[in-house]
Amino acid sequence: MPKLNENYLQLKDSYLFAEIAHRTAAYTEKNPDKPVIRLGIGDVTRPLCECALKALHEGVDAMASTDTFKGYGPEQGYAETRNAIAGYYKRNGIDVDPAAIFISDGAKSDTGNITELFGEGNVILIPDPVYPVYVDSNTMFGNKVTYISGNAENDFLPMPDHSQHVDVIYICSPNNPTGACYNKQQLKEWVDYALENEAVILFDSAYEAFIADPELPRSIYAIEGAKKCAIEFCSLSKTAGFTGTRCGYTVVPKELVFQSSTGVEMSLNAMWNRRQSTKYNGTSYIVQHGAAAVFSEEGIRECQENLEYYKKNAAVIADTLTELGIRFYGGKHSPYIWFECPNGMDSWTCFDYLLENIQVVGTPGAGFGENGKNYFRLTSFGTYENTVEAMRRFKTLF
Amino acid sequence: MPKLNENYLQLKDSYLFAEIAHRTAAYTEKNPDKPVIRLGIGDVTRPLCECALKALHEGVDAMASTDTFKGYGPEQGYAETRNAIAGYYKRNGIDVDPAAIFISDGAKSDTGNITELFGEGNVILIPDPVYPVYVDSNTMFGNKVTYISGNAENDFLPMPDHSQHVDVIYICSPNNPTGACYNKQQLKEWVDYALENEAVILFDSAYEAFIADPELPRSIYAIEGAKKCAIEFCSLSKTAGFTGTRCGYTVVPKELVFQSSTGVEMSLNAMWNRRQSTKYNGTSYIVQHGAAAVFSEEGIRECQENLEYYKKNAAVIADTLTELGIRFYGGKHSPYIWFECPNGMDSWTCFDYLLENIQVVGTPGAGFGENGKNYFRLTSFGTYENTVEAMRRFKTLF
Repeated sequence: MPKLNENYLQLKDSYLFAEIAHRTAAYTEKNPDKPVIRLGIGDVTRPLCECALKALHEGVDAMASTDTFKGYGPEQGYAETRNAIAGYYKRNGIDVDPAAIFISDGAKSDTGNITELFGEGNVILIPDPVYPVYVDSNTMFGNKVTYISGNAENDFLPMPDHSQHVDVIYICSPNNPTGACYNKQQLKEWVDYALENEAVILFDSAYEAFIADPELPRSIYAIEGAKKCAIEFCSLSKTAGFTGTRCGYTVVPKELVFQSSTGVEMSLNAMWNRRQSTKYNGTSYIVQHGAAAVFSEEGIRECQENLEYYKKNAAVIADTLTELGIRFYGGKHSPYIWFECPNGMDSWTCFDYLLENIQVVGTPGAGFGENGKNYFRLTSFGTYENTVEAMRRFKTLF
Repeated sequence: MPKLNENYLQLKDSYLFAEIAHRTAAYTEKNPDKPVIRLGIGDVTRPLCECALKALHEGVDAMASTDTFKGYGPEQGYAETRNAIAGYYKRNGIDVDPAAIFISDGAKSDTGNITELFGEGNVILIPDPVYPVYVDSNTMFGNKVTYISGNAENDFLPMPDHSQHVDVIYICSPNNPTGACYNKQQLKEWVDYALENEAVILFDSAYEAFIADPELPRSIYAIEGAKKCAIEFCSLSKTAGFTGTRCGYTVVPKELVFQSSTGVEMSLNAMWNRRQSTKYNGTSYIVQHGAAAVFSEEGIRECQENLEYYKKNAAVIADTLTELGIRFYGGKHSPYIWFECPNGMDSWTCFDYLLENIQVVGTPGAGFGENGKNYFRLTSFGTYENTVEAMRRFKTLF
């Protein structure tokens, strides 16, 4: 009989969105006359920009003729796409070697698969609350995780504990679910701490496009020394609305070289290259061609329109919560608004309270970790009209 | 300092295609007047069928409007695509539950990632010669592999050794690189052996569409009992020319339940579902919509034209080798022709000999394992004209 990976028995059931769907459906069935507004899911709703659509059609057209047909592409991604992303970094003031950029089908795959490059016995630091993939992908390999607490005291921006040694550090900024965003000085402290510890930072910058303040770092590589200690994950899901089109990228600088237990030099860039070459066959040419168009100056300008739409929604929510005196995080450089449940409610109680009284569905913070149990996440990805209406209802309630 | 995955140090350098490219480029530079015919690479060259192109464009169009926009899809794949594949199985006489079908970006990802579901200490049987991903993805997790020999004595169709206990068995039929294809009786012996051992067969059927004889099994599930012991991997790469468009699927029957070391029942379907839900965000909607069209009756009929084109090439090669008295395998139910290097040459000597004398590039068998070292792989994915010309040159040489 095969010995299975028994670490899977340690995974917590991922019932968050299923439970939300279940409770919402039950309510709707009982109250068919009361339409529900969904501000829970972290998925975009606006169409792709013109540049992307045009390039995606071109990508399909290329497949129609022998002369332009694209078969197996480079596992790392086409030069066109890698260069376009390097150009995007450059316009944001950051130099990234295209050879360090790996195109994938999304940041979820890469943040999940990256654990394969690490061995046993690392001290792995993961914030709580956080995107559940970091913890689950480590649990699947039997890795023990050390949590670092995000809470009201540190504005959900936990800082390093210099007395603690670490090997691997997960950071997501702007954060999912809290919307909190590190400034340069804070990120520099993390980079310095990683360099002191010879640790690796796994930096998830999936929401960087929401950052409006040019002083806030949109990439870990805005910080000096980061190429010696950090891998960065990013995606077109939020930047360009590619949640269903699927494209992401991961930067693994060639400077990331560590010694094996026997003193052999091991390059994380070379290891990731080998991992992807062995277990991935490259992202669809059609999608990569669309992605390259997104990162053109025109593409980014067009994407900005959708981002502004979502940012306007975020501002509507943020303004309402401010007016109501409800403490919240995010909403400014992030599509997420993370608020403290009023009247001491826990997050599931708050969920039921909002659903039953004002028919607004959000995401209970408990789904993102222990520290989320008295918080609630709303997103700016609904329509403007629904967002305004949901906030009107908030004002009637609190 | 992070402890890295030192199993990567055990990986053999994958220099096969790089070395082929290097030797070919060196020859071409010295002999610019002698055009080289490439029959080495296992990549398709014909455009996608009309059905697929139309549906891919529709998929892009859906992204252009809020009403039809597709964001995050189900990680397992859209019902449309899973049902279309179940329908394709059905037309080939096989019942597969759509809930057992997981859509992915390709069989390379799935055959690589599947190792994550298994624990330590399994006896893992892998044929030699074989597609290198099976071995490399196991080496990356520190798994020891037991080779089973494919050779001229068994027509490159190794059969179980009933005195040997195994836990996990890799089978690829029609085989890459040898083109050899198991018949029903032979596959039944493997299934019976797996059931006796309570082992899992990992069955790679990527080349099933090349099977012409209705008596030959196109799926492991054509064999009774296989749902209790086999996972099947397949892809649109060869069936529909999706090598650059990227779509595959993996069937994990719900019957595949094994006990953990402490007696807990573990379902491989549930584990794969959890793996994909955690580390994959679904295949691009655009690509899945194209894939669903491929598996319509009309789509498959259209794809057949390309397959016939490649099969005609394979026949040209097979007929020539037969005429020349060169012993070979495949070529009939496979795009691959695997021949014994004439005059006792080893496979790299044969590579140089063909390149220098008749400017034909193929793939040395040594790249697929120890048992390939006196064999050579040609593929039928070139143009008809080039294939005919390459074979004309063969006749002048041997």
